[in-house]
Amino acid sequence: MILKGKKGIIFGALDNQSIAWKVAEHCVKEGASIVLTNAPVAMRMGEINGLAEKTNSPVIPADATSLEDLENLVTKSMEHFGGKIDFVLHSIGMSVNVRKGKAYTDLNYEWMQKTFDVSAVSFHKLMQTMWKLDAINDWGSVVALTYIAAQRVFPDYSEMAESKALLESIARSFGYHYGTAKNVRVNTISQSPTMTTAGQGVKGFTDFYGYADKMSPLGNASADACADYCTVLFSDYTRYVTMQNLYHDGGFSTMGMNPALIQ
Amino acid sequence: MILKGKKGIIFGALDNQSIAWKVAEHCVKEGASIVLTNAPVAMRMGEINGLAEKTNSPVIPADATSLEDLENLVTKSMEHFGGKIDFVLHSIGMSVNVRKGKAYTDLNYEWMQKTFDVSAVSFHKLMQTMWKLDAINDWGSVVALTYIAAQRVFPDYSEMAESKALLESIARSFGYHYGTAKNVRVNTISQSPTMTTAGQGVKGFTDFYGYADKMSPLGNASADACADYCTVLFSDYTRYVTMQNLYHDGGFSTMGMNPALIQ
Amino acid sequence: MILKGKKGIIFGALDNQSIAWKVAEHCVKEGASIVLTNAPVAMRMGEINGLAEKTNSPVIPADATSLEDLENLVTKSMEHFGGKIDFVLHSIGMSVNVRKGKAYTDLNYEWMQKTFDVSAVSFHKLMQTMWKLDAINDWGSVVALTYIAAQRVFPDYSEMAESKALLESIARSFGYHYGTAKNVRVNTISQSPTMTTAGQGVKGFTDFYGYADKMSPLGNASADACADYCTVLFSDYTRYVTMQNLYHDGGFSTMGMNPALIQ
Amino acid sequence: MILKGKKGIIFGALDNQSIAWKVAEHCVKEGASIVLTNAPVAMRMGEINGLAEKTNSPVIPADATSLEDLENLVTKSMEHFGGKIDFVLHSIGMSVNVRKGKAYTDLNYEWMQKTFDVSAVSFHKLMQTMWKLDAINDWGSVVALTYIAAQRVFPDYSEMAESKALLESIARSFGYHYGTAKNVRVNTISQSPTMTTAGQGVKGFTDFYGYADKMSPLGNASADACADYCTVLFSDYTRYVTMQNLYHDGGFSTMGMNPALIQ
Repeated sequence: MILKGKKGIIFGALDNQSIAWKVAEHCVKEGASIVLTNAPVAMRMGEINGLAEKTNSPVIPADATSLEDLENLVTKSMEHFGGKIDFVLHSIGMSVNVRKGKAYTDLNYEWMQKTFDVSAVSFHKLMQTMWKLDAINDWGSVVALTYIAAQRVFPDYSEMAESKALLESIARSFGYHYGTAKNVRVNTISQSPTMTTAGQGVKGFTDFYGYADKMSPLGNASADACADYCTVLFSDYTRYVTMQNLYHDGGFSTMGMNPALIQ
Repeated sequence: MILKGKKGIIFGALDNQSIAWKVAEHCVKEGASIVLTNAPVAMRMGEINGLAEKTNSPVIPADATSLEDLENLVTKSMEHFGGKIDFVLHSIGMSVNVRKGKAYTDLNYEWMQKTFDVSAVSFHKLMQTMWKLDAINDWGSVVALTYIAAQRVFPDYSEMAESKALLESIARSFGYHYGTAKNVRVNTISQSPTMTTAGQGVKGFTDFYGYADKMSPLGNASADACADYCTVLFSDYTRYVTMQNLYHDGGFSTMGMNPALIQ
Repeated sequence: MILKGKKGIIFGALDNQSIAWKVAEHCVKEGASIVLTNAPVAMRMGEINGLAEKTNSPVIPADATSLEDLENLVTKSMEHFGGKIDFVLHSIGMSVNVRKGKAYTDLNYEWMQKTFDVSAVSFHKLMQTMWKLDAINDWGSVVALTYIAAQRVFPDYSEMAESKALLESIARSFGYHYGTAKNVRVNTISQSPTMTTAGQGVKGFTDFYGYADKMSPLGNASADACADYCTVLFSDYTRYVTMQNLYHDGGFSTMGMNPALIQ
Repeated sequence: MILKGKKGIIFGALDNQSIAWKVAEHCVKEGASIVLTNAPVAMRMGEINGLAEKTNSPVIPADATSLEDLENLVTKSMEHFGGKIDFVLHSIGMSVNVRKGKAYTDLNYEWMQKTFDVSAVSFHKLMQTMWKLDAINDWGSVVALTYIAAQRVFPDYSEMAESKALLESIARSFGYHYGTAKNVRVNTISQSPTMTTAGQGVKGFTDFYGYADKMSPLGNASADACADYCTVLFSDYTRYVTMQNLYHDGGFSTMGMNPALIQ
């Protein structure tokens, strides 16, 4: 029960393959109370109400690009908890250009802006909203999920690489401010490719899932394992880890070449 | 004359303190022909015509956020040169929130979007435009100027940290496509804080200029030294260097603590 | 009790200021059984027997540069536990040249070799010994303590920078082999400067302790906090984290300049 | 003629496939005077005298692990040049354990020590010798060749990974001292796998050569291209680049996955 008494907000639980879904389950199992949230449009096709029942948590819809929605979410969450929040998971990402099948050398820039807004700027908006409402307890913990495409090129990932680079930079920058003012830590977890509904929508996903699995000495990390890692980052065991990008990838990021790939 | 016969486009020469200004002078001295460009608004207050005369180069105004302007610039440049381009310098950056004095925890998101568009997305737009017009010669070289705030936090740099993270990611991603298709390399130079007109406009600039100068075993690199480095990156001496972020900083990036700072 | 039923070996508990001492206490509090070890010479001046009593653990002396001693340690530990080992902490480091006051530009190379042997090669010897004796359980966890001098220059740290670079490389390399064969993970924790008896022996320590403390948004991480982080790395919450160098430093590694330093 | 009037020492030209051989040829073509050196044992089987004739350079044998040999080499070189030295290339590496076919999990530690001494400590010995003899001109340049195995795991590279990690750390540490005292810069070039006589001796070399070639958008960098890069690092165009590890690899280091690999 390493999260006993802690209160958190979890973004991005679409269905039971989502990492956020697993995080929600693990957090509650470890003693936390949570609020679930997702974009109204994602909720319509999702199954979040089942998760809400299972974890005995309210669902407060919020479009993470809308400051009004975020303010409503944070305010309502504090009312629900009767106090401030201890941890937050940001697990949001979507590329319009990828969905529309545009090549990286032929991007639509309005769509790119929408992609950045949903996948990265939303993280700044969330923290700025919580900052203004003084919504996070001292020594709280904020985590966003990211991918190694922020450091290295995976061509099919397209403009999501830039989104993740932006997201990780926001984590560092806001981590300084939140750390200095409130001892709140902000980190990103760079997760293995994961067989989620969202992940599977990316072109070439199966290829790079298999490639990463072979490259990684431990194989790809699952959504369940990622949820374990999130819980320790929310817990008091990791109070001095901040402004880091933490690879949770079975060793992928440190491999140059795995002989298993060329056998 | 390490650039003999090469043809390039140089963005961002505002006045004779600009890095781009020095790059223009060095390139011509090394045998290159160049086209100068800058945003119409920057040109009005700048002294670019003097540089144009001195280097015998045309000036073709272009707002780097406008696809139309970029297409015009590239097309006209090719007409001027009677052929494709060998190298490009992107030296553009501006933060609306910093200018307006907004704190990092109180950003205006429309301004942030403008900042990203000017400082980073412009780099993608430029390369996409050149890609579509097939405007770069095989084994050409594209360089953008960046700052270590993309990796580490310098609080006064604010949202420019995110802009530079975005810029560097675009260099990597487009570097893959341009490298594969045309052997064109794309790199960023991460330059010391430099006493330019733009640099000096940033709050706390003098402090971090002095701090960086003391921290760096060689002291801060000057605009002139940066121009030297740009010329070798445009030359055929560096054909296999691509998708890199190259620190040109007198050793700053590799220092943990310099005893000179605490004496 | 996140280490319930787990068995570990802990190197390097010299006195109650040692990180390893805290790790031993935390591990036992979390339900683990441990064996304590240290070099015979370090034990004579240390207070390890008090820790052994307090944690109800045997002490098995071992010079970590001696393959015979390591084999004896591992064999006896397995006998004691009646089975294989789940986790190991390597917290060993010592520079002969620093102790003798030799400048980095005037090193004695026999002493350097001794430094590397004690501080880094010992880590390979330990893992190779355990590998040959098949001494680690599947999904076990090996951690070594390191310092950011492996990436950036802290002049007073001298040849210990090279020792830590070596240590971290060994973690990556052996992590591949142990991960592939046994799902065992190997990581290093890059800890803030810590007020240990060993740390305080380094020239200029107080200066860089204070500098790091001001630079880090959360301040320097304590030995106690480090012990917390070690326990989660030994636990089943972090099974897919491997071959990583994990900064536990209050944000130091991600700071470029902290305004607090120049006020 | 970007090295006109400069004087350098070049280690490691074994035969005309060696990178150092190409560097020697390029430096002389660019106007430099050089001294060639290699271990007596390597010279016996090598063809260095042909290179000496071609470049009109003396050969001064030196075992790079011997302080006496290094002192003799540096002293004789200064006599030959009638003054101090401007640049040095360290291109030395050899793993006893790899040669003898020992697995990474079954290393012989005396051989490991020999490997480190030849491949990395020799670099410190060289610089320390030059430091004591005040043998490098202000604004001089020192370069050592390295490989990305210092950052990521290539299992067949074995203990050479640790050697390269050590080498790169020495470059950073000594770079601080030499930069502060003499404005001398020290860098490492992390080169693509190269079809040299030494490279081809490594088990699995052909596999990882081909793998790297496909992964890299520009393909593997050749020895000739590496020599080009060395010359600019020795030249005055790069005076403020120091303490860096510079990838010269056709983009390999920044690729996560290249679709070309799985077609």
